[in-house]
Amino acid sequence: MSSEAQSRAVSPAGSSPAATPAGQFNVGLLGFGTVGSAFFELLRERSAEIERFNGVRPVISGVLTRSRGSFEEILADADLLVELIGGVEPAREYLLRAMRAGKHVVSANKQLLSQHGEELFEVAREHDVRLRFEAAVAGAVPVVRLLEESLSATPIERVHGIVNGTTNFILTEMAAGSTYAEALAEAQRRGFAEADPEDDVSGRDAAAKMAILARLAFGSPVHLDDVRYEGIEHLHGDDLEYARELGLGLKLVGTAERYKGGLSVHVHPTFLYSGHPLAAISGPFNAVTVESEIITELTLSGPGAGGRQTASAVLGDVVSVMTGGARPPAPPLVLDLIEDVESAYYLHLDVADRSGVLAAVTKVLGEHEVSIKSVVQRGIEEHARLVMVTHPVLESRLDAALERLGQFDFMRAPPRTIRVIEEEFT
Amino acid sequence: MSSEAQSRAVSPAGSSPAATPAGQFNVGLLGFGTVGSAFFELLRERSAEIERFNGVRPVISGVLTRSRGSFEEILADADLLVELIGGVEPAREYLLRAMRAGKHVVSANKQLLSQHGEELFEVAREHDVRLRFEAAVAGAVPVVRLLEESLSATPIERVHGIVNGTTNFILTEMAAGSTYAEALAEAQRRGFAEADPEDDVSGRDAAAKMAILARLAFGSPVHLDDVRYEGIEHLHGDDLEYARELGLGLKLVGTAERYKGGLSVHVHPTFLYSGHPLAAISGPFNAVTVESEIITELTLSGPGAGGRQTASAVLGDVVSVMTGGARPPAPPLVLDLIEDVESAYYLHLDVADRSGVLAAVTKVLGEHEVSIKSVVQRGIEEHARLVMVTHPVLESRLDAALERLGQFDFMRAPPRTIRVIEEEFT
Repeated sequence: MSSEAQSRAVSPAGSSPAATPAGQFNVGLLGFGTVGSAFFELLRERSAEIERFNGVRPVISGVLTRSRGSFEEILADADLLVELIGGVEPAREYLLRAMRAGKHVVSANKQLLSQHGEELFEVAREHDVRLRFEAAVAGAVPVVRLLEESLSATPIERVHGIVNGTTNFILTEMAAGSTYAEALAEAQRRGFAEADPEDDVSGRDAAAKMAILARLAFGSPVHLDDVRYEGIEHLHGDDLEYARELGLGLKLVGTAERYKGGLSVHVHPTFLYSGHPLAAISGPFNAVTVESEIITELTLSGPGAGGRQTASAVLGDVVSVMTGGARPPAPPLVLDLIEDVESAYYLHLDVADRSGVLAAVTKVLGEHEVSIKSVVQRGIEEHARLVMVTHPVLESRLDAALERLGQFDFMRAPPRTIRVIEEEFT
Repeated sequence: MSSEAQSRAVSPAGSSPAATPAGQFNVGLLGFGTVGSAFFELLRERSAEIERFNGVRPVISGVLTRSRGSFEEILADADLLVELIGGVEPAREYLLRAMRAGKHVVSANKQLLSQHGEELFEVAREHDVRLRFEAAVAGAVPVVRLLEESLSATPIERVHGIVNGTTNFILTEMAAGSTYAEALAEAQRRGFAEADPEDDVSGRDAAAKMAILARLAFGSPVHLDDVRYEGIEHLHGDDLEYARELGLGLKLVGTAERYKGGLSVHVHPTFLYSGHPLAAISGPFNAVTVESEIITELTLSGPGAGGRQTASAVLGDVVSVMTGGARPPAPPLVLDLIEDVESAYYLHLDVADRSGVLAAVTKVLGEHEVSIKSVVQRGIEEHARLVMVTHPVLESRLDAALERLGQFDFMRAPPRTIRVIEEEFT
């Protein structure tokens, strides 16, 4: 390799301040909340061991809290800034200023990365500094590194993720018989859900993480606003019961997949067959499955949150910068974002219990090319419930069929649908 | 960071030959069997994409097969050598010579790494070259990178692995009702087992992989000969049946764990409670669970073998060297290797069906501090079978209890024991 190519390929940048003693790596810490204070503590505990492995000791050279510290002074002293403030501003401005000053940065900020990722990546490339963000996606589960490094040579077809531990905990409780309200209260009591759980239960938090994963897996920029998402607030306990009869478990699943030359990224409550690698993930855990023709599938799972777990991922990023880890993502290749994709569906219809209804329903579905894989019918007084699982069908076709069904007077309530992922991935 | 520290921390070495054009990275390939030819093909397919991401294009600059090619010429032309010959010699000599010539190396050779790892690591450190070996452990499952990089800042307590796909396939078939011989024949028919399956079914292949994982997880040198292993050839179908009644599934599990200030590394057929992350791994898949106080547990799973899957892991290593990936493990910290550790056990006793036997058995177990968690007794003609699961107990205590039991005339066959991993990790 020529020395020019080698320098491009491997040297980190960063005009390090002359003040840093040899063998020391100065880390400026922005933010001192749950993760920030856990990171501060963990770095102190582990710095000798890190020095033993890497020959250089990381040291906290400054801390910026809401009430104390000067960003300028912390920036001047640091080789690397760790941003654990959260939210878009001033985190964005701090990271941009740091990178423009030739400093490496590590962030756990999913809001920022999912909304301003391209801007940050571009500045990191321009100034040849490292920008690491393992903790932004799935806590201690190293899926960012998997996609950026281990699979950098592998064309990926699809990523499925359980990337929000709060909703996975709630759904686990609901599967055991709790109502949504009971499960949410339990999650709050145990510290897995915030007082205002909106960002988690609406699916928005998962959508931000899937935007970041999609960018890494497919090289195409995906903004949080590009991700369709649906939360878990409106799920019915009886859907979980029927699903159990069909051998299905319910998770909030984010999906990013190639589809007809484009890219589809979405988050929905989803039924999984019991053999799916994500079906066994319970409680506040996260997991991501990556599918590719070459590797078939890889699954990573572990704790999705927690101050110390997240701090461990942040510290892993710091060490990776110290040892010359991967550079920021390459400039994007833009793929079309496609909304209307195929999925199998669970379909729940409340209908009048009279003859001819099932025939009418299956006729409408057939006309719209919605093909049924399995069906459960049950009469409850003068009502009947038709619960079906379809073969994969374009969402637009299913919507058209449901609109047509809604015109029949035997329908007692609007149809409910939930996506289904088959055991056999395709 | 001082420039000296920075150079130690991040620059790769390697006096690259002046012949390599700028923007090109020359890869010499040693070995052209299943994985070698798959790697050759995959690199060709992916080189443009790798160049787009990294600014440098990897190119195969020479191939050494059994009958063709000169090692010296391939070495002279290469920036990096990929060793896919397997076995100890001449692979060892080739890797040592390459590193001494300042070349980076990538290997998928578990025999070599588990027997001469320290020698290779030391030469890599001395000559400041990269030595990568992701594919040596669990095929496409990036557990080497997880331990070397993502968890480099995390103190690890325990690693459990299903690291041999052949035996996991056989055990999956046996759980579905096949005999050992039928399952082995099916594995051979489907290409998951070799004509001579000894290395896989004896547990030796898994032991080599656990030696490598233990070194990475705990920093202490572990030679293949240090790993106690037991294979699956002698398992009884009825043990699987009883275990199902007790809610247990059988896997060949490798364990590396801290124990009383030392380290224990072993491979045994092991029963897992259904909630354990490894319990759901079926067919020719591999999976590794890493436990740590900080992160609780992380699990990685995916295909354990296959030419293209393994080639994908090798290519990931090549890309990681091109982009300045992690350096070889630090000099070892030697921990004592401890053989006598605690485990829960499944215990199967064939006894005469007469009164007082159960009382005598439980008295002996109690005297040796073997405490029983659950028991199933079943009479078959004049025999009875006592199947028990114990609480965790030192192996030496259990052995002493079994020796004492063997002296009773009511014992109709030698007792059989299989380790059990509880759902709740400790």
